[in-house]
Amino acid sequence: MRRGRTEKVLVQQIRNDDVTKFPDEVVVEEPLEIRLDGNLVATTMRTPGHDYELAVGFCATENLLDHVPITAVRYCGEGPAAEYEFNVVTVETGGQAPLPQPRIGNVSSSCGLCGSVALAEIASRMNPIDGSTTFHVAALQRVLKEVNDRQEMFNRTGGLHAAAIFTGDGTIELVREDIGRHNAVDKVIGNRFLQGKSDANQLGLFVSGRASFEMVQKAWSGGFGTLIAVSAPSALAVELAKTANMTLIGFARQDSMNVYTGEIDK
Amino acid sequence: MRRGRTEKVLVQQIRNDDVTKFPDEVVVEEPLEIRLDGNLVATTMRTPGHDYELAVGFCATENLLDHVPITAVRYCGEGPAAEYEFNVVTVETGGQAPLPQPRIGNVSSSCGLCGSVALAEIASRMNPIDGSTTFHVAALQRVLKEVNDRQEMFNRTGGLHAAAIFTGDGTIELVREDIGRHNAVDKVIGNRFLQGKSDANQLGLFVSGRASFEMVQKAWSGGFGTLIAVSAPSALAVELAKTANMTLIGFARQDSMNVYTGEIDK
Repeated sequence: MRRGRTEKVLVQQIRNDDVTKFPDEVVVEEPLEIRLDGNLVATTMRTPGHDYELAVGFCATENLLDHVPITAVRYCGEGPAAEYEFNVVTVETGGQAPLPQPRIGNVSSSCGLCGSVALAEIASRMNPIDGSTTFHVAALQRVLKEVNDRQEMFNRTGGLHAAAIFTGDGTIELVREDIGRHNAVDKVIGNRFLQGKSDANQLGLFVSGRASFEMVQKAWSGGFGTLIAVSAPSALAVELAKTANMTLIGFARQDSMNVYTGEIDK
Repeated sequence: MRRGRTEKVLVQQIRNDDVTKFPDEVVVEEPLEIRLDGNLVATTMRTPGHDYELAVGFCATENLLDHVPITAVRYCGEGPAAEYEFNVVTVETGGQAPLPQPRIGNVSSSCGLCGSVALAEIASRMNPIDGSTTFHVAALQRVLKEVNDRQEMFNRTGGLHAAAIFTGDGTIELVREDIGRHNAVDKVIGNRFLQGKSDANQLGLFVSGRASFEMVQKAWSGGFGTLIAVSAPSALAVELAKTANMTLIGFARQDSMNVYTGEIDK
């Protein structure tokens, strides 16, 4: 049986000299196994919901699909293991996707990698974003306000990250929330993928946390021309955004934001 | 050549109607390959520094060591690849550690797992925390104040998570910062491991982010009797803390905190 997305637990709150007990709403976290053509590619702790989007978004942004079409997405089982069946999602390409590489195993004689090598590897297989929209600051302020209004579970539990897609005038197209910041981004990108939508260069991607290297990588995989993050970027994230020809905005608040790469209109 | 832990980038700040350009300090992020007896067990994006602690803490908290002693920890290479050599750390047990299991590959016919199964798996191989200290709220308030004072890189860059170990009266023993929240925890636990310290049941672990399932799992692996998090716990994290006999505190501020499991003194 599928559990709800939040649960109530009894909490003892200590505030200055007062102690009160009350039932508090906390976010549910469950492991999801993601399989690609029968091969396990990831187990991620996630907030249940939009699992197909998460599985497809993960495969897409981790470069596991190599541009082959997805033929089916399904929960693993319809058998008696009803309690578990919603924690495994299989993405099918009829065996067309390349065999996933194990992350654990014997390594070659090469002696590691640096950020620039990781960056060059990505740049070698992806094209810079072309023809992206230059957002007006008022549109970005609108995004920040609306995302905040729509972060339902966060407002109830204080425990979730959000990712959102927005258009040129700052209209929110889609919001997804998850206990994992990567998962929230995979869900919005997976949503577009499942709907066969491309050409995200005119769109922006909002993330509620930091703009790390992996966030920029995922935004680039999704084709977004602009990434706006509530918190700080890393140095390598700035470098990757520059390579991607992506506008990167950090510390985004309604009254202030920092533009690290690209331009926005004032 | 090893890069610094922060870099300067030129940023355009938009604040209401003003646009200013200035060099902003951003945190450095670099991939670290962690190997155990020559086998790659993880590649993690991390803030360089305390890499031995990170590698050892990762192996310890991910249950890869199976209680065998570590015989050596070293950077991979001393060869000409000077730019890369600090991004690979090898943990050696002379082959005594069990062979790490690949995370990608063919899966059995079993149809996934649920949170309770994941929890039972951990509980089956770990003992509940025994004899932990009951912290006084004043000691915890002291921890929150001091961690904040000591989060150097966060204060400069706004881009880092912190983990800290504290004693019964709220004295901070160790603080580590990293762009990855898991990495910061692995670093403090790895530090104790490298120093041969055990009996953490009288100590508390502070984390600057949320208390997710994996955070409680790592705290339990480190043997900590108390976990205090600035942000929200998940339902599964609360359940795991209860199983571990660990005191779990969330939404920790100097003037207010929520106790989800265990007790604190008023």
